[in-house]
Amino acid sequence: MKQTALSELGEFGLIDRLKEKLSAGNASTVRGIGDDCAVLAKNEHEYTLVSTDLLMEGIHFDLMYSPLKHLGYKAAMVNISDIYAMNGTPEHLTVSIAVSAKFTVEALEQLYEGINLACSRCGVDVVGGDTSSSVTGLAISITAIGSVAKTAVAYRSGAQENDLICVSGDLGASYMGLQILQREKHVFAQAGAQPKLAGYEYVLQRHLKPEARKDIIEQLKIAGITPTSMIDVSDGLSSELLHLCTQSKMGCKVYEEKIPISADVATVCKEFDITPLIAALHGGEDYELLFTVPLKDYNVVKKIPSVHAIGSVSARSAGAVLVSKAGEQIALQAQGWKQF
Amino acid sequence: MKQTALSELGEFGLIDRLKEKLSAGNASTVRGIGDDCAVLAKNEHEYTLVSTDLLMEGIHFDLMYSPLKHLGYKAAMVNISDIYAMNGTPEHLTVSIAVSAKFTVEALEQLYEGINLACSRCGVDVVGGDTSSSVTGLAISITAIGSVAKTAVAYRSGAQENDLICVSGDLGASYMGLQILQREKHVFAQAGAQPKLAGYEYVLQRHLKPEARKDIIEQLKIAGITPTSMIDVSDGLSSELLHLCTQSKMGCKVYEEKIPISADVATVCKEFDITPLIAALHGGEDYELLFTVPLKDYNVVKKIPSVHAIGSVSARSAGAVLVSKAGEQIALQAQGWKQF
Repeated sequence: MKQTALSELGEFGLIDRLKEKLSAGNASTVRGIGDDCAVLAKNEHEYTLVSTDLLMEGIHFDLMYSPLKHLGYKAAMVNISDIYAMNGTPEHLTVSIAVSAKFTVEALEQLYEGINLACSRCGVDVVGGDTSSSVTGLAISITAIGSVAKTAVAYRSGAQENDLICVSGDLGASYMGLQILQREKHVFAQAGAQPKLAGYEYVLQRHLKPEARKDIIEQLKIAGITPTSMIDVSDGLSSELLHLCTQSKMGCKVYEEKIPISADVATVCKEFDITPLIAALHGGEDYELLFTVPLKDYNVVKKIPSVHAIGSVSARSAGAVLVSKAGEQIALQAQGWKQF
Repeated sequence: MKQTALSELGEFGLIDRLKEKLSAGNASTVRGIGDDCAVLAKNEHEYTLVSTDLLMEGIHFDLMYSPLKHLGYKAAMVNISDIYAMNGTPEHLTVSIAVSAKFTVEALEQLYEGINLACSRCGVDVVGGDTSSSVTGLAISITAIGSVAKTAVAYRSGAQENDLICVSGDLGASYMGLQILQREKHVFAQAGAQPKLAGYEYVLQRHLKPEARKDIIEQLKIAGITPTSMIDVSDGLSSELLHLCTQSKMGCKVYEEKIPISADVATVCKEFDITPLIAALHGGEDYELLFTVPLKDYNVVKKIPSVHAIGSVSARSAGAVLVSKAGEQIALQAQGWKQF
């Protein structure tokens, strides 16, 4: 039998291939694999939302520079973020961990304190989980469960031509925070020098302790806006825009000059000789919300603090393009996680 | 700060300690940590049930003797079993895996075929998940979601004095299957001899490809019986009886002569010089259902194929005891997983 290396397919190709092995037919499955959350029947007015992640030491985090409390906070927040990305309300979390015997009870308590802090901020209860040992590294698996009104659910697939494309906060900071951490780890390994982290607080915080954008979902609700499509920025703006376009069967045009990048990020980018736009497009782990709204909502949405209109949805035939500051049209590329 | 080794607390002690770090207060949490599933608000008549497990290579399975298809099947079934253990109906599964690059796409397809087979048998859809890489072994995290009528939910805590204690199927086979596999692996490592598995089909199947007892839940429903308490046998009969007693604030008396042990298990036990009763009490991974019903249901429940009445619930002060064939009363001990 033919044997195919995982690297031949990449993550998204692998998911597509494995999906083919799965039959589905349960009436209570409203939407399965392919969005930020699965959408399940709940009651007359609401759907249940479910999202899950498996985080592995050495792949998703490095205990050399991730304090356990931050790690717990981030692990919870990134799953909670997926619930918000459907315009939902997170309610429950299950937390499973596998640890080697070298961990102490107190170290795990730190991890759980971080999880609990994230949950408290978002009104979420930890309702279950699993603890077991690991012969190797730490593994953390989190499942977030929430609900959303049927009339409010925002899929990746609902973008309409001429919709406004919006993104919250700013992009690229988490990636630049990671660059700092990796550099200082390297310097420490080579020379035993204490890490220099002063002055990099913003990008470090964005990487180590990201916040799910509960506030944006609340502001949209207050403003009476239901996004036509939405996704959270975990793999980078470019990859997420392509997800929205592909699933909505649309194209898009976004403007370089509109993409929000903080001054801190620009400074760190300069230090590393990285173009800030590249960090924003492909850096990932920003956990900001990328969404589309009807053009008529422009005057309302622009009043929401930290929401930026960056472009608009076009016909599929127009493709997904970035308009550079010089006016060039550049096709957006998916990068995502190249893990294998 | 005091540092406590995980081995000082054990799995259950660790869970209790970590639970203290978690605040909870969401109105939609009906029952959190501490039963086979979390129980969440769903609609007027039903609850949502959620159970999750994280399986690590080298701890929970050994790829030397677990074919990937069987592994997928078992990983799905043990989570589905938790939904049945609440008297519920499983509906959805999320599947996350972390794999090293040495795995091929075709190998993972085998894993997913096993998962899909288990799901098909129980009417479950895989609705989401996560795929990522691992620097070390394979990790599989599964979350099962189901529902149960509010009037039918069976907690661990509902056993009443004089209730009949019942268990489905037979016990100890999975553990003896594991003994065979470990012996043959050892022989292979020492002498390169081909494993001798013929004649051990029953115990091997019970270990490698357990079945969640959907049939028992269906039969109970047909018979009009709602168990007063229920749990699935994952850690061994003794440990599960103690869970029911502790959470129900009751005692129990079970009879050695009533505990179902198959002839195959007795034969393999003889070969290994293991007392069959010990395999049944402490072996675990049987995934049978242990439940209590009011004494008045005895005549109905005894007609359900493969259900065995093994004793009765007593006052808490009487403790949890096993009555041996010789008539001695022996206090039941929790063993469970000693992982750390």
